[in-house]
Amino acid sequence: MSGKTIITIGREYGSGGREIGEQLAKELNIPFYDKELIALAAKKSGMSEEIFSDIDEKATNSLLYSLATGAYALGSRMSPMSDMPITDKLFILQSNLIKEMAQEGSCVIVGRCGDYVLRECPHVLNVFVHAPLEYRVQRVKEVYGVESGAQEAVRKTDKRRASYYSYYSSKKWGQASNYHLSLDSAKLGLSGCIQLLKTTIDLLEK
Amino acid sequence: MSGKTIITIGREYGSGGREIGEQLAKELNIPFYDKELIALAAKKSGMSEEIFSDIDEKATNSLLYSLATGAYALGSRMSPMSDMPITDKLFILQSNLIKEMAQEGSCVIVGRCGDYVLRECPHVLNVFVHAPLEYRVQRVKEVYGVESGAQEAVRKTDKRRASYYSYYSSKKWGQASNYHLSLDSAKLGLSGCIQLLKTTIDLLEK
Repeated sequence: MSGKTIITIGREYGSGGREIGEQLAKELNIPFYDKELIALAAKKSGMSEEIFSDIDEKATNSLLYSLATGAYALGSRMSPMSDMPITDKLFILQSNLIKEMAQEGSCVIVGRCGDYVLRECPHVLNVFVHAPLEYRVQRVKEVYGVESGAQEAVRKTDKRRASYYSYYSSKKWGQASNYHLSLDSAKLGLSGCIQLLKTTIDLLEK
Repeated sequence: MSGKTIITIGREYGSGGREIGEQLAKELNIPFYDKELIALAAKKSGMSEEIFSDIDEKATNSLLYSLATGAYALGSRMSPMSDMPITDKLFILQSNLIKEMAQEGSCVIVGRCGDYVLRECPHVLNVFVHAPLEYRVQRVKEVYGVESGAQEAVRKTDKRRASYYSYYSSKKWGQASNYHLSLDSAKLGLSGCIQLLKTTIDLLEK
């Protein structure tokens, strides 16, 4: 790629959105951020990565939950965010990191409301990857080796992502108008999605 | 194009979805169906085109409305649909026409719940074209020469299309998962959208 493009990817669980993003970043030779964000955020804040993993992408909004998990007390080291639920703190930390990454140059960012966080950024391409439920359940079984309860896992993860997204962005997760490009990975294939994204980036950089 | 692909296009008002479909059909040298459907349906049923134009893409569901418009009485000529609101009759007529068109070969079909009507068809590519409200209002002013009330017209038309779509398909209009590909025409440009659609068709026909 010749110019600067930040690709954010929202994805239904099991759709292959993360894999598409990872492969795209590889082919374009640009950084890829997903779980890495958590580690980076954890290091920056001094909080343990375990806590971050546990609450990541859950919009808890409840002070009680933070108190119950003991996460709230940890926050007292941090000012001026010390009277804020830990989920919101994590969101702010990750948002700042995402903005820094976008400033540095082209990259792929999966999840974490990247499209919303970078809503003021002109070089962003917001993508949503989805697929029919039966395709995703089958893929979760095959790729992640989940034997039983795959459908339940897919439904629960989607529900969690949807509520995380709407809690922080006040928009509806998976609504076409929130993204520049939405792709059905079952119809188009993972490599087809990657090819379409590359064509789109070429178009935008012209 | 080498194989057979039916492209259905749902579109937000003012997004240029119709123009994209028309140009795509031209470039692929395949039929394009939009308002033409109404004329065809009208001819087939023996109803006047004026009546069809008036109720097209309105999901009325109310017998009272049909009676009030006088449209209901006309239906009595038609059996066995004679006890059905005229909007539903038109939907069924158009659905049958769409299925016939899809049977005949590659084509572009704009609106009319084409994606839902052809849900059993394997050669279909369902597309949704959208754009931010301010872009569409500006475009409606420029392209359609609407001077005042453009924003209101955009909102009302979208609302009507959304309720038409959800009434007949029981799905949410503009939700990414209902389509194989959703495109932001403001970000990608009308010619960019056409190029992406051509790349997608090539991918699917490989």
